[in-house]
Amino acid sequence: MKKILVIHGPNLNLLGQREPSIYGAATLDEINQKLTKVAQDFVELVILQSNHEGDIVDAIGKAPQDGVDAIVINPAAYTHTSVAIRDAIAAVNVPTVEVHLSNIYKREDFRHHSMIASVAVGQVSGFGLQSYVLGLMAAVDLAQGT
Amino acid sequence: MKKILVIHGPNLNLLGQREPSIYGAATLDEINQKLTKVAQDFVELVILQSNHEGDIVDAIGKAPQDGVDAIVINPAAYTHTSVAIRDAIAAVNVPTVEVHLSNIYKREDFRHHSMIASVAVGQVSGFGLQSYVLGLMAAVDLAQGT
Amino acid sequence: MKKILVIHGPNLNLLGQREPSIYGAATLDEINQKLTKVAQDFVELVILQSNHEGDIVDAIGKAPQDGVDAIVINPAAYTHTSVAIRDAIAAVNVPTVEVHLSNIYKREDFRHHSMIASVAVGQVSGFGLQSYVLGLMAAVDLAQGT
Amino acid sequence: MKKILVIHGPNLNLLGQREPSIYGAATLDEINQKLTKVAQDFVELVILQSNHEGDIVDAIGKAPQDGVDAIVINPAAYTHTSVAIRDAIAAVNVPTVEVHLSNIYKREDFRHHSMIASVAVGQVSGFGLQSYVLGLMAAVDLAQGT
Amino acid sequence: MKKILVIHGPNLNLLGQREPSIYGAATLDEINQKLTKVAQDFVELVILQSNHEGDIVDAIGKAPQDGVDAIVINPAAYTHTSVAIRDAIAAVNVPTVEVHLSNIYKREDFRHHSMIASVAVGQVSGFGLQSYVLGLMAAVDLAQGT
Amino acid sequence: MKKILVIHGPNLNLLGQREPSIYGAATLDEINQKLTKVAQDFVELVILQSNHEGDIVDAIGKAPQDGVDAIVINPAAYTHTSVAIRDAIAAVNVPTVEVHLSNIYKREDFRHHSMIASVAVGQVSGFGLQSYVLGLMAAVDLAQGT
Amino acid sequence: MKKILVIHGPNLNLLGQREPSIYGAATLDEINQKLTKVAQDFVELVILQSNHEGDIVDAIGKAPQDGVDAIVINPAAYTHTSVAIRDAIAAVNVPTVEVHLSNIYKREDFRHHSMIASVAVGQVSGFGLQSYVLGLMAAVDLAQGT
Amino acid sequence: MKKILVIHGPNLNLLGQREPSIYGAATLDEINQKLTKVAQDFVELVILQSNHEGDIVDAIGKAPQDGVDAIVINPAAYTHTSVAIRDAIAAVNVPTVEVHLSNIYKREDFRHHSMIASVAVGQVSGFGLQSYVLGLMAAVDLAQGT
Amino acid sequence: MKKILVIHGPNLNLLGQREPSIYGAATLDEINQKLTKVAQDFVELVILQSNHEGDIVDAIGKAPQDGVDAIVINPAAYTHTSVAIRDAIAAVNVPTVEVHLSNIYKREDFRHHSMIASVAVGQVSGFGLQSYVLGLMAAVDLAQGT
Amino acid sequence: MKKILVIHGPNLNLLGQREPSIYGAATLDEINQKLTKVAQDFVELVILQSNHEGDIVDAIGKAPQDGVDAIVINPAAYTHTSVAIRDAIAAVNVPTVEVHLSNIYKREDFRHHSMIASVAVGQVSGFGLQSYVLGLMAAVDLAQGT
Amino acid sequence: MKKILVIHGPNLNLLGQREPSIYGAATLDEINQKLTKVAQDFVELVILQSNHEGDIVDAIGKAPQDGVDAIVINPAAYTHTSVAIRDAIAAVNVPTVEVHLSNIYKREDFRHHSMIASVAVGQVSGFGLQSYVLGLMAAVDLAQGT
Amino acid sequence: MKKILVIHGPNLNLLGQREPSIYGAATLDEINQKLTKVAQDFVELVILQSNHEGDIVDAIGKAPQDGVDAIVINPAAYTHTSVAIRDAIAAVNVPTVEVHLSNIYKREDFRHHSMIASVAVGQVSGFGLQSYVLGLMAAVDLAQGT
Repeated sequence: MKKILVIHGPNLNLLGQREPSIYGAATLDEINQKLTKVAQDFVELVILQSNHEGDIVDAIGKAPQDGVDAIVINPAAYTHTSVAIRDAIAAVNVPTVEVHLSNIYKREDFRHHSMIASVAVGQVSGFGLQSYVLGLMAAVDLAQGT
Repeated sequence: MKKILVIHGPNLNLLGQREPSIYGAATLDEINQKLTKVAQDFVELVILQSNHEGDIVDAIGKAPQDGVDAIVINPAAYTHTSVAIRDAIAAVNVPTVEVHLSNIYKREDFRHHSMIASVAVGQVSGFGLQSYVLGLMAAVDLAQGT
Repeated sequence: MKKILVIHGPNLNLLGQREPSIYGAATLDEINQKLTKVAQDFVELVILQSNHEGDIVDAIGKAPQDGVDAIVINPAAYTHTSVAIRDAIAAVNVPTVEVHLSNIYKREDFRHHSMIASVAVGQVSGFGLQSYVLGLMAAVDLAQGT
Repeated sequence: MKKILVIHGPNLNLLGQREPSIYGAATLDEINQKLTKVAQDFVELVILQSNHEGDIVDAIGKAPQDGVDAIVINPAAYTHTSVAIRDAIAAVNVPTVEVHLSNIYKREDFRHHSMIASVAVGQVSGFGLQSYVLGLMAAVDLAQGT
Repeated sequence: MKKILVIHGPNLNLLGQREPSIYGAATLDEINQKLTKVAQDFVELVILQSNHEGDIVDAIGKAPQDGVDAIVINPAAYTHTSVAIRDAIAAVNVPTVEVHLSNIYKREDFRHHSMIASVAVGQVSGFGLQSYVLGLMAAVDLAQGT
Repeated sequence: MKKILVIHGPNLNLLGQREPSIYGAATLDEINQKLTKVAQDFVELVILQSNHEGDIVDAIGKAPQDGVDAIVINPAAYTHTSVAIRDAIAAVNVPTVEVHLSNIYKREDFRHHSMIASVAVGQVSGFGLQSYVLGLMAAVDLAQGT
Repeated sequence: MKKILVIHGPNLNLLGQREPSIYGAATLDEINQKLTKVAQDFVELVILQSNHEGDIVDAIGKAPQDGVDAIVINPAAYTHTSVAIRDAIAAVNVPTVEVHLSNIYKREDFRHHSMIASVAVGQVSGFGLQSYVLGLMAAVDLAQGT
Repeated sequence: MKKILVIHGPNLNLLGQREPSIYGAATLDEINQKLTKVAQDFVELVILQSNHEGDIVDAIGKAPQDGVDAIVINPAAYTHTSVAIRDAIAAVNVPTVEVHLSNIYKREDFRHHSMIASVAVGQVSGFGLQSYVLGLMAAVDLAQGT
Repeated sequence: MKKILVIHGPNLNLLGQREPSIYGAATLDEINQKLTKVAQDFVELVILQSNHEGDIVDAIGKAPQDGVDAIVINPAAYTHTSVAIRDAIAAVNVPTVEVHLSNIYKREDFRHHSMIASVAVGQVSGFGLQSYVLGLMAAVDLAQGT
Repeated sequence: MKKILVIHGPNLNLLGQREPSIYGAATLDEINQKLTKVAQDFVELVILQSNHEGDIVDAIGKAPQDGVDAIVINPAAYTHTSVAIRDAIAAVNVPTVEVHLSNIYKREDFRHHSMIASVAVGQVSGFGLQSYVLGLMAAVDLAQGT
Repeated sequence: MKKILVIHGPNLNLLGQREPSIYGAATLDEINQKLTKVAQDFVELVILQSNHEGDIVDAIGKAPQDGVDAIVINPAAYTHTSVAIRDAIAAVNVPTVEVHLSNIYKREDFRHHSMIASVAVGQVSGFGLQSYVLGLMAAVDLAQGT
Repeated sequence: MKKILVIHGPNLNLLGQREPSIYGAATLDEINQKLTKVAQDFVELVILQSNHEGDIVDAIGKAPQDGVDAIVINPAAYTHTSVAIRDAIAAVNVPTVEVHLSNIYKREDFRHHSMIASVAVGQVSGFGLQSYVLGLMAAVDLAQGT
């Protein structure tokens, strides 16, 4: 069974209470339950949330030796500023899918640019919780090399 | 049964022969067959390919009276230049999903900006044929108001 | 009697239903009726709406041989992107008035620049239906060489 | 009878002698006579010319207590630099029409941007003396709430 | 007793009626009464409001010979455009505190840059009437050389 | 015998009457006659003029199945705005020569950038009718693989 | 009694020894003692210094459940780069005051822009230790809803 | 005898006390005495200092009817911001020389651009008091049409 | 017989060995032989190669007294940086054709701008050795005034 | 014996496996062994690798009390984004040498700017493992005050 | 007697024939005669004209050992591009006056920036031959240390 | 024995007297003696200093036939402006090391960009004379292919 690493970036622990008009009413637990349910029969999920850029870089760097086959990442605020996460994704040989709950192109200018996009395989944004579900499906495909 | 309008922008008629290292080996017919198969049990698909910006604007403008419930659009080259398509999407009340075969953020600078992104509900890019399949799934959700 | 060509650009066929808080509640038919009524005693109106940039370029290019004395154009989305319409206006020797329903300077940044403005005689914007009426009056003056 | 305040910005006292190829041969007196004649039966005009930004800000600030129903302003050079006049227009609740004798979009780059445009209801530019006449007509409409 | 010059820039005479959602409901008189009450026991206040850039430059230029020990200035619209006020502050040897009622960093882009900030000792912004009170306290400190 | 497709972009149907100080006095017919005469002994010419971006994209897309060996294109206004034409040229495997009657580097800033130049083999500009003749000669070379 | 969280960003642990001509001679301990003294009778202070962006994001995210009524933050270097801290402030419903020891507008260009300013209520900068005192007073007001 | 108008812009009344390391130790009176001495035998000088942009615009606008043959202007802070003074110089037919005490190209970036330079005949900057003397000599030449 | 000056800019002496995938395998001697052969019956060629900007400026400056009727120049690296060569071309009254072996628009950004283009009659680029041949033909036309 | 702190920034733990065509085949251990060997007779090395910006800031801040005489830092991804590391280097009085394995000027645009360069004494980049060796030699010189 | 070095940059050898509407009808010989006449009684002139940047750098570098007391330089085209001449002026301790025949601020954008201005003492531009005379007078003052 | 070409760019002949606070007190002779001493046992040095861009281009172009194995270049002012030197380095197949005495990232903005950096193997800057020594050591390594 393939293993998929799901990474939730900074402030996503606050989902549900955080600006629900932008991020929706679902809590991070509810998102994780949904993903676990979608994944359950055919892939193993490993889930990480951290507000620390370094933790996320650590986790990506260890992904190959942890047997991770694909990564789904919502880099949140670090989307726009982290060369370190970008370099980590480029350094390991694990296909990565970038997801966003909100449509970042409808928001402030500084959110229109993703440092991550050009090292990810692809991006899903704007569909709320569904962005994660679609992103996980893409990651499963990539993990299976189909 | 919900109706979904799928719009293929300019030069997508050339898929298969067109820079396959970027756009993949699938022809437009193969993509349409795949989408039709995915859609068949639960939504009706209407498919349009045109190299003419005006044709695409016409089609979007008529979507409400044609009973279209959601739109999946790969605006291709017009992604980056067409205010007219953007305005058409904003003018009609039909939820729209933007899809791209390639990861536009890995390509020339002028492809990094989408005029369409901020009027679409969301965007799926970089997964080749799979971008369309995931985009269609998102559109079905939107059409069903779930 | 002088002849005036009125050109409505892309998506103006959707007026009335299209974002009425920006564009007002009047339909294109109502605008055309109003213009016809204003014009009726002293100038002949020829009215065109098209979503196709090429159609608009064609119409402007033929204006001299069609005996057009002045042009009133609301280039809509093509205001901001069309070098072809700009070149057509510069190519024919027919004085042209640019009109906009909305105040384009209150809207998104990309609407602040008009490719057309510097080849038109002048511009009227922001007064809704009244922009057309004032623009028509300016065009009549220009047609009459007063 | 409605009251309309007409404001002529800096250097417009020099009209007639000032670069006539750009601004036309009419003097400021002739413009004012023309406006007075157009206005005479249905609105009262109050006319101000000043080279002082502060005077113009003062006049706009006092407009509500002076019973002014609409403003026609040619901010001239202050069009491009005055945040103070912009703030004054935004501060009072009097609909304002911006007019320009010349087509500012045909001139130097620094004249292409108006600080005033986004707080005015609309703009008329490029028709010489006729810009004022059309602007006054728009202002009368706004004053009458039609 | 130390003397402090308080300068209110353009349109601040309109406070109370001017966009209260941005500037608050307090009138300029109420602000001045509040400042006078805060100041009363230990510093003398001299208060100026003007819509004229030149008046403000004049007042700052005369501050040394008028025995002013510190300046509190809300340059309002001139914040963003006045090199002359900046040069006046740099020319005299009087410590200056810049205050703003609103948080200028939440507003239009052109309000994000202050010509004054780099010649003032410091800046207080965003606390409404309280910005003036805190700014006055900072100025008292500076006047006393503490 | 090699086949060469010559494409004239928008407003070139107006040559002769269109700003002759920039574009010269030759009409499009005269240019086509000149090219036909130059070509006659050794290559077949297919000539298209259109004001419609979509028509030009269509024609380039069909070039391979039409047996076209090289393309000479004066994209005119679409030079500066058309990603669609650029993508069409990149999509088909037909060597393309870009020509311009005028020296676009002596004109307005927005004409200095060509979307087409980086997908064409080369560019000839500024020699009037002679640009076409030299461009045709380059295309013949390319068609012959010399 | 209201609770106020005071956050000192990176390198502020080095105060006293760190570029004293810019940051002053006071150590962080001295600043904290001063704040504690100012606060002592009417608000409870919780003080954090960290060089880790993630720690600061964690602390802000937990502020609501920790009963914090207002935040005073000197984001130091993270002022200019941290979208994560910005998002944390926007995510929780706790009024926040941004303070700076130095006048950031007198320093290098990259220090002129604050990512934090537009999500804070207001900003105090340039008064050294006094910036904290004034910022604390503003925070007390906000905490008390006055 | 020719008449020359010398205009000193804002804050030049503070010369001598104003940042002497930049502007030198000479007072405005000393500069005027020096100019009067240089001028005395062959031209009449009229000298104006004002901190009000409007006063300077007024003075330039009246120059032709006042019989002024040439203008020497140190626009000081208005150099960089005043379209109104620029337009005044362009409006009257009086040759104008721009002078600066300091070398504006050695100072802050915003001082590198002069709005006045392109409507003046020429510029002298960086020589302190001597800039005025050389500028006056140039103006005398222009006034005499040599 | 007309005389044509052919100028080869810096590093073109290295052709053949210099990045042949960009510049082709032909040596400068082979190019010169080809041009001489093309020219032989009807124009005289004078050929210069120099790595020194000043030498090229000298040669252009002397062209009129040397009886040169037209210039063909490949300014190579100086294309992008030399105002001096530009000014030399503008100073003499000799029609000039700019040629490039490679398509400069396919290369680094700093090669997309030519200082020379706007003072040349026209430009030929991208056709390797053939760029010179076509450029020479254009120059012959210009020399003959046809 | 002098003490030198060597800091390896984020993702350098992945050397050897990380994009070897850019970063070389040497692992971090091999680099450290090489440095230790070079250093052994005359300086003491303390080596830190961290993916956490805060850890690196902590280490630099403590360097003076740890008796560090010079720092060699390869800030990796944080080169381009970390104001905090920059401020830490500026805060402590320890001479610092910046090194890079790759030539950052041959890579993506966002890697061309170093936040660190202007607070370091100097920079060595592009020589792979040798960059560290040369950087260590420079640091030894600085530590010894030669 | 003081010695002054006068440097004429590229293409100034062509004066008289070179675009006389911009540069005037005087030849370089006539300018030099005029300067010699002005200088004759009180300073020695050494005059150099070169189209070679390196020659000008050489001459400035040798100025101190040649006993030059001040430099008058018209850098012509090198004004806008030469860091080498700028560095030479900064390297030697000889006061330098920059002169221009034309008003460079009325010309193309790339002529608005001078690399030389910020290392010269001052600048005189726009007065034709008179720019040199005034510049020489300024240089004499500087040479004499008055 | 390997041969290394050392190139000193413009104004480096002035070292010692030239802004010693930036460039240090060592003369060029002293630098060359130091390099000769370092090199003496194992490589041959050829040293060139020139203020002429063309001389440097000439020397680099001849390096292969002169048997040069590596180049050490301090391009000085030409670092920032010379496409010709850049192209020369790219044209020859000789590994090149760029060195700078000063830390160019601490100086004026226009010195932050090197045209040379992306064609050199690597760069050493900021260590004064030691930059040359380290650069020579890097060059020796490259020459020896180690």
